[in-house]
Amino acid sequence: VQETELQHRLAAMEERLRLLEDQLALLRLINTWGPAVDTGHSEAAASLWTDDGILESDLSYLVGPHAVADMVAGDGQQALVQQGAAHVPAFPVLTVTGDRASATGYTTVYRHTPQGYEVWRVSANHWEFRRGAGGWRVARRTTQVIDGGPKAKELLRGALEKEAP
Amino acid sequence: VQETELQHRLAAMEERLRLLEDQLALLRLINTWGPAVDTGHSEAAASLWTDDGILESDLSYLVGPHAVADMVAGDGQQALVQQGAAHVPAFPVLTVTGDRASATGYTTVYRHTPQGYEVWRVSANHWEFRRGAGGWRVARRTTQVIDGGPKAKELLRGALEKEAP
Amino acid sequence: VQETELQHRLAAMEERLRLLEDQLALLRLINTWGPAVDTGHSEAAASLWTDDGILESDLSYLVGPHAVADMVAGDGQQALVQQGAAHVPAFPVLTVTGDRASATGYTTVYRHTPQGYEVWRVSANHWEFRRGAGGWRVARRTTQVIDGGPKAKELLRGALEKEAP
Repeated sequence: VQETELQHRLAAMEERLRLLEDQLALLRLINTWGPAVDTGHSEAAASLWTDDGILESDLSYLVGPHAVADMVAGDGQQALVQQGAAHVPAFPVLTVTGDRASATGYTTVYRHTPQGYEVWRVSANHWEFRRGAGGWRVARRTTQVIDGGPKAKELLRGALEKEAP
Repeated sequence: VQETELQHRLAAMEERLRLLEDQLALLRLINTWGPAVDTGHSEAAASLWTDDGILESDLSYLVGPHAVADMVAGDGQQALVQQGAAHVPAFPVLTVTGDRASATGYTTVYRHTPQGYEVWRVSANHWEFRRGAGGWRVARRTTQVIDGGPKAKELLRGALEKEAP
Repeated sequence: VQETELQHRLAAMEERLRLLEDQLALLRLINTWGPAVDTGHSEAAASLWTDDGILESDLSYLVGPHAVADMVAGDGQQALVQQGAAHVPAFPVLTVTGDRASATGYTTVYRHTPQGYEVWRVSANHWEFRRGAGGWRVARRTTQVIDGGPKAKELLRGALEKEAP
């Protein structure tokens, strides 16, 4: 093996490894949100966001981890926690570009009721991520409930425009 | 390190990397179907299929990307898009063998109604994939609604017969 | 490249590859449970467990693959199979540490009825895995239905305490 060829081959493999690890790390980040909000753990929920992270949805517009924490600790979310809820994200379409990444996919929220489980919300999501000193964080999440309207469709269309990571 | 040993080790690692990348690429392919059909984007939906790809289900039997595009552009699917729907695939059991691959898993379709969300269909799926010049495509997808009958069970049994990739 | 530096670099990459492969293998193990129980295949369901594996839930406490097989072959599960059911796990938060691993996440069970699909159970799950001669197996799975009570929340909190793999 020529030394330069070897260096090139090793560097290419390390880059490919990093891309795979990034995808699994981003899925982990996305999948931590449910356990955080369904146990009412406001600090854990807030820690997923960048300092200037935005959570935008048909329900609210929150800027920064403190606003996220306040929402999770608030009456609406705590009532849901008491009732029993499950925020279940599906495996999204992921795209990683260096220290930025995005994901598009569905989330379903189930709510426990005395009559059984209700599919409370099915939503379209677009996440934007940034990698910093502490690893990947959510820079922006936009969520729109799927109700036939154009907003959720616009988010879902994001999954169709992207190149593979 | 002996040079032949090094060559062998590098080649083995590249093969393992490729297998991991293939699995994530196949998941991406599967996960793009929902956003395509739920936005009524017939071209994006069709582009997931090989030229001779087959979509077989209890609802239809389609051959080729044009037939898939026609189905997505058709009245039934467009009515579903207007109403608001989410085709959500679960993470399937995947098997990759060179330029062929298969997957077995569940899909849930939620439909928005004036009374809330309805779990419209829960189905068993078996996908077959082929890798070509443009990457992985769906060569065949067989879908059967889960209703206690033998067809869905036959598909699901495919997940139990396969070796790990 | 210095030979020792090269050795170090190759070993580090092999370790990272292994960790990625482990995560996909564990997901495969988790995702095989549904097809096994929804087809009533008691042997396939049992084969996922270690010899001393435990399946603990609000419904039962089973020790060992034989007990798991008996549960799957039993009247309750077989009635569910006849009716049509789908045990769909979401992508969990995974942590791998050498030959041990754990996962925390949601499972939804849909049941087919003459009136359509019922979301029968939404549960929180904590899995513990061990790697043996035959690969990864489930050493313990604890499942609690999400109903607002503390048990499911205690399981979900496990996802918030773990370091990334």
